[in-house]
Amino acid sequence: MKINDRFDKLVPNYLFADVARKTNAFIAAHPDQKIIRLGIGDVTLPLAQTVVDAMQQGCEDLRYRESFKGYPEYEGYDFVREQIAAYYAGFGVSVEADEVFISDGAKSDCGNIGDIFSEDNTVLIPDPVYPVYVDANIMAGRRILYAPSGKENHFLAMPDRKVEADIIYLCSPNNPTGAAYHADQLKEWVDYALEKNAVILYDAAYEAFIQDDRPRSIYAIDGAKECAIELCSLSKTAGFTGVRCGYTVIPKALTRSGKRLHDLWYRRQATKFNGVSWPVQCAAAAVFSEAGQEQCRRNIDYYRENALTLAHALDDLGIYYTGGHHSPYLWLECPDHMSGWEFFDYLLEKAAIVGTPGDGFGRCGKGYFRLTSFNTHEATQEAVERLCALLR
Amino acid sequence: MKINDRFDKLVPNYLFADVARKTNAFIAAHPDQKIIRLGIGDVTLPLAQTVVDAMQQGCEDLRYRESFKGYPEYEGYDFVREQIAAYYAGFGVSVEADEVFISDGAKSDCGNIGDIFSEDNTVLIPDPVYPVYVDANIMAGRRILYAPSGKENHFLAMPDRKVEADIIYLCSPNNPTGAAYHADQLKEWVDYALEKNAVILYDAAYEAFIQDDRPRSIYAIDGAKECAIELCSLSKTAGFTGVRCGYTVIPKALTRSGKRLHDLWYRRQATKFNGVSWPVQCAAAAVFSEAGQEQCRRNIDYYRENALTLAHALDDLGIYYTGGHHSPYLWLECPDHMSGWEFFDYLLEKAAIVGTPGDGFGRCGKGYFRLTSFNTHEATQEAVERLCALLR
Repeated sequence: MKINDRFDKLVPNYLFADVARKTNAFIAAHPDQKIIRLGIGDVTLPLAQTVVDAMQQGCEDLRYRESFKGYPEYEGYDFVREQIAAYYAGFGVSVEADEVFISDGAKSDCGNIGDIFSEDNTVLIPDPVYPVYVDANIMAGRRILYAPSGKENHFLAMPDRKVEADIIYLCSPNNPTGAAYHADQLKEWVDYALEKNAVILYDAAYEAFIQDDRPRSIYAIDGAKECAIELCSLSKTAGFTGVRCGYTVIPKALTRSGKRLHDLWYRRQATKFNGVSWPVQCAAAAVFSEAGQEQCRRNIDYYRENALTLAHALDDLGIYYTGGHHSPYLWLECPDHMSGWEFFDYLLEKAAIVGTPGDGFGRCGKGYFRLTSFNTHEATQEAVERLCALLR
Repeated sequence: MKINDRFDKLVPNYLFADVARKTNAFIAAHPDQKIIRLGIGDVTLPLAQTVVDAMQQGCEDLRYRESFKGYPEYEGYDFVREQIAAYYAGFGVSVEADEVFISDGAKSDCGNIGDIFSEDNTVLIPDPVYPVYVDANIMAGRRILYAPSGKENHFLAMPDRKVEADIIYLCSPNNPTGAAYHADQLKEWVDYALEKNAVILYDAAYEAFIQDDRPRSIYAIDGAKECAIELCSLSKTAGFTGVRCGYTVIPKALTRSGKRLHDLWYRRQATKFNGVSWPVQCAAAAVFSEAGQEQCRRNIDYYRENALTLAHALDDLGIYYTGGHHSPYLWLECPDHMSGWEFFDYLLEKAAIVGTPGDGFGRCGKGYFRLTSFNTHEATQEAVERLCALLR
């Protein structure tokens, strides 16, 4: 019996554990001080009422023999897939309902999608990035290269034709930097992928935060249907972090080695997945209803207002940052050449504000710091006052 | 870019599609005949009322900021894990709450658990069997051996010390044969696994149907905690096929190459999974409450009564079969040396009964046939009358 010894190569990420430990020590030492948490990576506003109603009705269906639902379709119910196709059409992107696979979340899909690719591929991952892309590919034994980002490209990694890659992860708006690609930049990635015969795995989990004409889907770009899989989630769009629902789009035009990746993923899901809970799919469909969209939009606007409050403060302070405008995240350069952890300690000690050092998101995160917009208006406003008093 | 070309080795299983096609053709040709479906592999009774109540309350929690739940723990909420540990204690098996991982179903875990093992292992799978074990390991590129079963061992495959295996799938009560191991037989498997340093993946999805002193968990066997992972599901126990919740138990004592498999699975889930929906976990906890257990038991008794109705008919007819007593499935030898498909056609044409030919479950399924107990009492009784009239 051999275990998967590639697990040994995973680097333990103690980032959030260390943040919690330091925060708790500060609270113990200063029980009178009011801590403001701007490190939260989870939504905090409740679900839209219409979504809860639909989910409860979904539960009610399971109470009676006549309306009971057993095993769902592996790929999701058609009425949900059709709603999602209509949602794409709403921002001008054409996707067929049967190209959409419903799942229990984008994180599962991000990890599991690897099953359809050989381990003998080179993976290109932007730095800094959501650590899951890296770890899932270490577990699978793939060679990993990084596409660096920084101030010079506004934390939007761009393709380098000298680099040979087979699988490319992109995340826009990015976690953790909040930076979002323009169409011409995504076009460069699509052209690169087509040239290299590579496949882009496009994580669009934060698309609902985009406010201008930046693409909300990679399929807004010509050629993307021949080279990209899109992974998306209702976690941030509709506050579904605790409900668990996401979706993956695989165009039927996307083939490699003469095989439709759509068919491979269907076979993977039919073998190692059994579909999404009926009440959850009812809730997901409600998200895409007119009332659901209006209510979910209000929650996103609430977080966006916080993000803009923080962004304006950083503007005032003359601190370099990305994100905040099309993302719930702000990614700032630590003042006075402090390291991420130095700035963490400084902010905690002097202003009782908790954020996240950039170091945990990759080599290019050194000297940077992430703030999030998931706290209340009041706490965010107070944080801004403390930040300005401290850093002015 | 290389796709995972091991998908080419998957044998397309048209079993259920062919059953549906033939059934629909029969209905079209005989619109006046009342078809009885005994091929159903899904539950049909609604959820226990107390479970629906808990799930709806879970939804209600998401309506308000104060009670809102975001990202769940990867391994499930402690209150659910504790309920499951108490459930095991109820049939005399000791499992720690923190050895239990909550998931979206046993099928996901069955497939995904492979991530913690090297591809360079030999897998031993009983024949006939649930096809998912085979397909998941073909996708991963593992060598597969089969442990044959048949009339000679009452469709309970037993270990052969000459066979070298690293990973062993067992399913008891078995899908599709309904046969369930006695403790002394499982002890042979545990001893074999310990001798070979192998790991047993024990699928206990049908444990709630066991009525006598047969083990409901592999951990009832001495030594199992050093060699077995148990996968279980609420799908058949509590009618959760459409709700999606299961659990996997990995004892902390289970190590290979000096590593706790518990830790590897935690790392796998933390990387490629994001936990189970809050309302679903609330529903799962309610299953294990006193009222939940009593209500779920009533549903299982309903299916069991059907299974016994079918079993008694086969006894009367002198037809050899397994299952039916500790399982919702009956697995019978086709009369007059008919093949599975011959008997399917015969039963459909002459009695308008739909079952499942055994061929789809492996080489040892040839000449056998599966009936299930998930239809109503009335339909099952009528099916028995038709069967007896036809085969007496």
